Amino acid sequence: MSDQSTKFFNPSGLKRLCSDLLQKVKLPPKDAELIAESLVQANLRGVDSHGVARMAIYIERLNKRLTNPKPRITILRETSAMALADGDNGSGQVVAKMAMELAMAKAKESGVSLVGIRNSTHFGATAFFSMMALDKDMIGITLANSYATVAPWGSRIPYFGTNPLSVAVPTGRELPIVLDMATSVAAWGKIILAAQKGESIPLGWAIDSDGDVTTDAARALQGALLPFGGPKGSGISLIIDVLAGLLTGANYGPYVGDLYKDLANPQNVGQMMGAIDIGRFRGINEFKNRMDAMIREIKSLPTAKGMSEVFLPGEIEIRNQRRREKEGIPLPPTTINDLQNLSSEYGVLWWDDLPPNS
Amino acid sequence: MSDQSTKFFNPSGLKRLCSDLLQKVKLPPKDAELIAESLVQANLRGVDSHGVARMAIYIERLNKRLTNPKPRITILRETSAMALADGDNGSGQVVAKMAMELAMAKAKESGVSLVGIRNSTHFGATAFFSMMALDKDMIGITLANSYATVAPWGSRIPYFGTNPLSVAVPTGRELPIVLDMATSVAAWGKIILAAQKGESIPLGWAIDSDGDVTTDAARALQGALLPFGGPKGSGISLIIDVLAGLLTGANYGPYVGDLYKDLANPQNVGQMMGAIDIGRFRGINEFKNRMDAMIREIKSLPTAKGMSEVFLPGEIEIRNQRRREKEGIPLPPTTINDLQNLSSEYGVLWWDDLPPNS
Repeated sequence: MSDQSTKFFNPSGLKRLCSDLLQKVKLPPKDAELIAESLVQANLRGVDSHGVARMAIYIERLNKRLTNPKPRITILRETSAMALADGDNGSGQVVAKMAMELAMAKAKESGVSLVGIRNSTHFGATAFFSMMALDKDMIGITLANSYATVAPWGSRIPYFGTNPLSVAVPTGRELPIVLDMATSVAAWGKIILAAQKGESIPLGWAIDSDGDVTTDAARALQGALLPFGGPKGSGISLIIDVLAGLLTGANYGPYVGDLYKDLANPQNVGQMMGAIDIGRFRGINEFKNRMDAMIREIKSLPTAKGMSEVFLPGEIEIRNQRRREKEGIPLPPTTINDLQNLSSEYGVLWWDDLPPNS
Repeated sequence: MSDQSTKFFNPSGLKRLCSDLLQKVKLPPKDAELIAESLVQANLRGVDSHGVARMAIYIERLNKRLTNPKPRITILRETSAMALADGDNGSGQVVAKMAMELAMAKAKESGVSLVGIRNSTHFGATAFFSMMALDKDMIGITLANSYATVAPWGSRIPYFGTNPLSVAVPTGRELPIVLDMATSVAAWGKIILAAQKGESIPLGWAIDSDGDVTTDAARALQGALLPFGGPKGSGISLIIDVLAGLLTGANYGPYVGDLYKDLANPQNVGQMMGAIDIGRFRGINEFKNRMDAMIREIKSLPTAKGMSEVFLPGEIEIRNQRRREKEGIPLPPTTINDLQNLSSEYGVLWWDDLPPNS
């Protein structure tokens, strides 16, 4: 993964840098901190495709007011167990955090809840929101649509977004379960990153614009991602677009604004937050004990050929986080250049000027 | 698919036969009709793995009182948006239908709902329940765990069931979307059916007891199914077991009773029904028009290489149903033998004695 030009950055310094930059394009400090936290947490967890590599495009869209730095988020419809919110084109992180908090309040009241959002934008890593439920003893669910990059099974034209899905489940002594996945074989951000690094991508991730499978990341960017798991993953991607996009009245399919290519319109991404208050179904300790037992049993199963260990959803990310909190966050030259350019453009202290462990 | 010994059966005759048999083992007529309807509908839809091939084991378990023919279903916990029910080891179809009706009533009240069930049993095809929401202008969601046949990603021992997932979405003029899928590459029932027919299975469906991939259905029955979509599908399977099994207090993982091999204990399957009242989020006609538009757009996408058509979830099943309603339901010799034996054992009219189109 590392090459000669990769450098390691202190997480809190990186977070401060991102927050300072976002405040320069008119984000309130609290919201700037939140977005910086979301990006740096993704890097810490090893999900570099959703980390600070997104800063340049976030700043550009905020500058152009395609993302609204001071959204007035409104609740359009509401019951004791659901709500529909209009995100007023605010930063996805800001809108989705509000929605997940509302979902958890409603789950506290009614046991289960769904809160949908229209007129939202890219919100970083999906797990950031589902994980908010963990210390409330709730199961958190987050779905989102995104701009079209994935060919529905059987076709060769991008129609679905990578439409991610995250579910976070609290546990007792064991690590929490945090499923966080694109419904494409691979995240679009990974293709972008591979293209930036000039690296190839594995066969089966994508097709080119002629519909041929390709390992060339640049050609894949002109073609389409493939859905994970063939027709089944394609079906799940469609359902996520129905729940996050069509049900909320957000854009859907190819109408969701491309984060990078459409610099004239807001994205109108749709997102859906769900929460389940475990205690309404059964005793929370009983549930957590069973979760722990299940996790231990799965971890101790004999491995398949060629596998060193059975990993549970979220486990690798927590290991990454523990390592990177010590070693720092590795960034490739393109991301370093982006951040350096933004720093000089906005007159914000760059890494070299930052005190160590700030 | 057809061979010399496959015969075609009239759906309503087959349904009457199943209902009569189920009443002989003490099921109330209404419940017997429901189960017969669920099995024959699966056959009509081309899902033969969940059709009348299950009659022999259903009858055996009812006879042994491992399935309770007259369950007293109780609601253990309840809010305006959720409930937890105890199925008293009743037939899965009977318990799940009640739970989905309750889920829809709660969604009518609160907009969204989840109703979990413990102490349930095999309920046939999952779509049977999610589809109940279609004519109520609701999105129906059905999840279930099942006895261990699937190796978690990275291991070679069955721990998860095929843990199916179904979501049904109403549309306007276009066919409804009905996703119905096992979270294994293939349904266990398909392996059983292939083994019965002496057919091989595709590579990638299963591993044998040594952890080697196999195309031998009989060896696969001794080994494990693989989760669909690698680690992502494995993660979704785990989440389904959390929601249907651990959250409801049903059995989970390898503790769910094997439908065929454990003839000493009730299964204690866990199931979860969800409903979303679309009208609480946005106008139902507006939603249905958008669904229709999306479906037409996807159907008209250029096909991938080697594909004749882009199919949407549930489309192939509806085509099967239209064809089989005319042509009849093809059954292989093993299933015909089973039904014939049951008929003579319980003194119920067999096919040859049934009037045509009865």
